[in-house]
Amino acid sequence: MTRARYPAAAMTLTVVGSIAFDAVETPYGRRDRLLGGSAVHFSLASSFLAETRVVGPVGDDFGEEEYGVLHDRGVNTEDIEHVPGGTTFFWEGRYERDPAVRHTVRTDLNVFEHFAPKLSPASRAADTLFLANIQPDLQREVREQCADARFVAMDTMNYWIERTRPALLRTIAGVDCVILNDEELKQLLDEPNLVRAARELLTMGPRVVVAKQGEYGSAMYTADGIFSLPAYPTADVVDPTGAGDTFAGGFMGYVAAHSGEELTDELLRRAMAYGTAMASFNVEAFGSERMQDLTGDEVSARVAELQRVTRFDAAPVPMRA
Amino acid sequence: MTRARYPAAAMTLTVVGSIAFDAVETPYGRRDRLLGGSAVHFSLASSFLAETRVVGPVGDDFGEEEYGVLHDRGVNTEDIEHVPGGTTFFWEGRYERDPAVRHTVRTDLNVFEHFAPKLSPASRAADTLFLANIQPDLQREVREQCADARFVAMDTMNYWIERTRPALLRTIAGVDCVILNDEELKQLLDEPNLVRAARELLTMGPRVVVAKQGEYGSAMYTADGIFSLPAYPTADVVDPTGAGDTFAGGFMGYVAAHSGEELTDELLRRAMAYGTAMASFNVEAFGSERMQDLTGDEVSARVAELQRVTRFDAAPVPMRA
Repeated sequence: MTRARYPAAAMTLTVVGSIAFDAVETPYGRRDRLLGGSAVHFSLASSFLAETRVVGPVGDDFGEEEYGVLHDRGVNTEDIEHVPGGTTFFWEGRYERDPAVRHTVRTDLNVFEHFAPKLSPASRAADTLFLANIQPDLQREVREQCADARFVAMDTMNYWIERTRPALLRTIAGVDCVILNDEELKQLLDEPNLVRAARELLTMGPRVVVAKQGEYGSAMYTADGIFSLPAYPTADVVDPTGAGDTFAGGFMGYVAAHSGEELTDELLRRAMAYGTAMASFNVEAFGSERMQDLTGDEVSARVAELQRVTRFDAAPVPMRA
Repeated sequence: MTRARYPAAAMTLTVVGSIAFDAVETPYGRRDRLLGGSAVHFSLASSFLAETRVVGPVGDDFGEEEYGVLHDRGVNTEDIEHVPGGTTFFWEGRYERDPAVRHTVRTDLNVFEHFAPKLSPASRAADTLFLANIQPDLQREVREQCADARFVAMDTMNYWIERTRPALLRTIAGVDCVILNDEELKQLLDEPNLVRAARELLTMGPRVVVAKQGEYGSAMYTADGIFSLPAYPTADVVDPTGAGDTFAGGFMGYVAAHSGEELTDELLRRAMAYGTAMASFNVEAFGSERMQDLTGDEVSARVAELQRVTRFDAAPVPMRA
């Protein structure tokens, strides 16, 4: 099989994942139709830093208003696949008073059930690729289509870990970076210690492992060491939906924006900070509402504030032993 | 009532709390008789930084070997109360493969049940005081005995929050600092958001609130802002028992060692780093075994490593919005 090769386009980013309508109930209220899905949350964050192309399916109920939200942020929607007669993926969830406790009320896969990603030449030519949480074989097919991508990251979830572990491990072997909830990372490696789980995963293909830890922050593991970053402390968690995808969007957007440079740990640490800042905004309002009116200046200010919140001097002190 | 006043002695630290024998089972093995208790774990850490006096009760089974462990670290044991005919507090616990999951198998309060702290003039004269987790009225009595202490911190637990909340709040009103598990902090304030819970507690007396977050680290709240510090990433969690008290010992030891200086946020952040480093050693072996052969150089090196693990540059980046 031959396939036309396009040179990887610098500073471009493709994300493949879900596009959804979400109904969400939290102690702050209830919304019946929020623009959501992993690819949407991701791209609204990444688009602050790099040109982003979204690959994912929608139905007839996805209209100008929804496209408008993405276009307003400069997101390229040419590879959003409209399935005629179809209905967009729908998810309904409820959060308890402690927003870490979430209940899925209803999931209608709709057009997402038979999603087979079709990438245009332009999407395939992106030099940075994010495979959001979809079936692992589909992730691997996309990854193979983007043969020239210089940095490929993926997410997954417990559903695929439990049901398609061999396929998932094959996909993981072909990516540069895994971005995963810490509980799922432990589950994937059957190892309750996060440091050990991440180090084991680093022997299986990826050279970067990022563990998302919800309200506690995130940690990154590479051959050069470990980086731990707390979450930005937020008093107003209105709706946590999409925080993880927004984090990934900030992280990958930063990487894509520096795709001409060597991917050092220093650079990846800064990428983590941008992901953290983006996620902290996303949870401040329902769905992606906060991301829609967010400005680049606000993001920069929060990254600087995150540094102030985490910095300390290690001034030596005399020891009595 | 009159009471003789002694001037607060600089750089001295008194801790009031439990002294115990622990039986612990973890996936790494089982030990039937470990030297433990909050005041022991605390003082083995704090003694690296400041002269520490322990106030707590023991029974006839507490002998030269146990005193020797404390004396080897320079801990002052003059206020350890030997109850003739009594038996030392005993706790038995089991940890699951995930060390965050702990089961208490047995608790025999023994001499701790009727513990009424008696402080010598020297213990009362310490300028830094830690009230480990004991009945809140007893904590308050001790606090009042140490009228000249310049920095007083306390711990507590869900048991007292649920059963003696009014007494606990009176005690809290009289201390400078609360060091508490984040879940208990949320429970105390009936507020699931940690930032809100901590801010509310800052209006109730203390000027420093430290939330311990187990494997995720800790966070500090003051009038000047928030500091978040991840745990030191540890691949070998052999026995988590006493990690919280060891953290408090490192934190308070650092404060006591700088008792001549203004307690700025910068200083308290460094204290958090020392507490974090100490706790990371404590979990590497059963009971307090690791703390017994620890050196000051190892502590200093780990604090420096903790800084490397958490540091990032917030280099500004162009934003597309």
